[in-house]
Amino acid sequence: MARGRTTTVMTTRLGDGAGVRPDRLVVEEPLEIRLDDHVVTTTMRTPGHDYELAVGFLLTEGLLAGAPVRTVRYCATGPASETAYNVVTVSTGGVAPEPSARLQPTTSSCGLCGTASIDALLSRLAPIAGPPVPIDVAVLVRVASSVRAGQELFEVTGSIHAAAAFDPSTGTVSLVREDIGRHNAVDKVVGRLALDGSLPAAGLGLFVSGRASFEIVQKAWAAGFGLVVAVSGPSALAVDTARAAGIGLVGFLRGDTANVYAPEPAVVTRAVG
Amino acid sequence: MARGRTTTVMTTRLGDGAGVRPDRLVVEEPLEIRLDDHVVTTTMRTPGHDYELAVGFLLTEGLLAGAPVRTVRYCATGPASETAYNVVTVSTGGVAPEPSARLQPTTSSCGLCGTASIDALLSRLAPIAGPPVPIDVAVLVRVASSVRAGQELFEVTGSIHAAAAFDPSTGTVSLVREDIGRHNAVDKVVGRLALDGSLPAAGLGLFVSGRASFEIVQKAWAAGFGLVVAVSGPSALAVDTARAAGIGLVGFLRGDTANVYAPEPAVVTRAVG
Repeated sequence: MARGRTTTVMTTRLGDGAGVRPDRLVVEEPLEIRLDDHVVTTTMRTPGHDYELAVGFLLTEGLLAGAPVRTVRYCATGPASETAYNVVTVSTGGVAPEPSARLQPTTSSCGLCGTASIDALLSRLAPIAGPPVPIDVAVLVRVASSVRAGQELFEVTGSIHAAAAFDPSTGTVSLVREDIGRHNAVDKVVGRLALDGSLPAAGLGLFVSGRASFEIVQKAWAAGFGLVVAVSGPSALAVDTARAAGIGLVGFLRGDTANVYAPEPAVVTRAVG
Repeated sequence: MARGRTTTVMTTRLGDGAGVRPDRLVVEEPLEIRLDDHVVTTTMRTPGHDYELAVGFLLTEGLLAGAPVRTVRYCATGPASETAYNVVTVSTGGVAPEPSARLQPTTSSCGLCGTASIDALLSRLAPIAGPPVPIDVAVLVRVASSVRAGQELFEVTGSIHAAAAFDPSTGTVSLVREDIGRHNAVDKVVGRLALDGSLPAAGLGLFVSGRASFEIVQKAWAAGFGLVVAVSGPSALAVDTARAAGIGLVGFLRGDTANVYAPEPAVVTRAVG
């Protein structure tokens, strides 16, 4: 289970300091995720926290549908080949619905728009309840700094995404996960919280090191986060989704400035700033 | 077909220059891709160049399997709702194999490793033939600069990926495509070349504005590119894949330096630098 998450290759440096030298790279390996013996997906991921990734993926994609996780295991339980660690089976004892139908939608109609994507989420997820999460840029700047300090792989590879759970009142970062895939890093955070019995993540913030797409806000919503903070920008659909979900959405957290996209300014101009 | 690719939302700026102001965001909408009336996938993408995206996706994922593209069309041909432009059907007249089986692999074995992923590509793609593509850092720096100048959406949103085709000898950039998804931007470039009858892209380079994952190198290989250049780092599997494919792979193109990951240094130390 102690899988390598970085590896060293020889590379030729061009330009200043030209020459051959070793370089640490992020490992990327396929992980097959199974739910009660149905193969749900194969995702390219950075090995590590695989149980969290599998549980977080199934939960945030709505595939658990509220079913309790009974066991999580690699393909082999005894001595096994390397590939045994590239399959994780999450078992709900057959309580979760069969996943295949969800994954291959066929329709004779003329497709979805973004609004329909939000409506689909609203049909299975309630808007986030509870008091609004505080949005304080000084706190968020500390969060970004703490996450960076907690990124083991970024330090050595310079090329990996991070997601983190934090307390929006104090800026305390409770969990940092890294992966070559931004969405995988989020799934690992959500999966850890799920395995700890800490969901919904009411009152917590989710930090992502890159952009905030629809998919990221969808995952935050499924986990119950009250706030999503991205270092880069959100998509327009991500903003609409966050507003529909009642999730705070902050983007372009750079230096000591940031943009609040949700809730809409009219609602919060007195509460923030 | 003149779909909006950016939209303006009101946002609250925190920190320096605090206040409410409009902000241009990248649009993200679902695109359903159909192959001969089978629904193959729904991908979140930035509208624009949708025919290229659909053809490029099917080609680089191996789903066309050499079948000729007869027609590409949106769901509706006459006046239709907005959602009609979120479905693209690529028709090969039934020549392409039925896609469903490929997309839901089920296996009783213990999963794949990265090497098996490369082997799977080798079983359907020949290594890139022809003379090695020149790798000159001064040329690549010009390419990066030209791509940035050609990025319409990055200028106004600050938050979008680009992919581009270029001539590695001269640095001439012939094609730039943007999307909120890095892989979508690559599919749009490949799809354009396919629709122009310009594949395989032998002797051409593929530039990507972010990292080089396995998926990006896979797509470059399927299209026949001789060189992949990424602004950020590659994954270890991307390096192995490029070496197996005979594709040059350059990462961390920053300022006037870059790292060459493929071919292996021992082979090229005299030819580059």
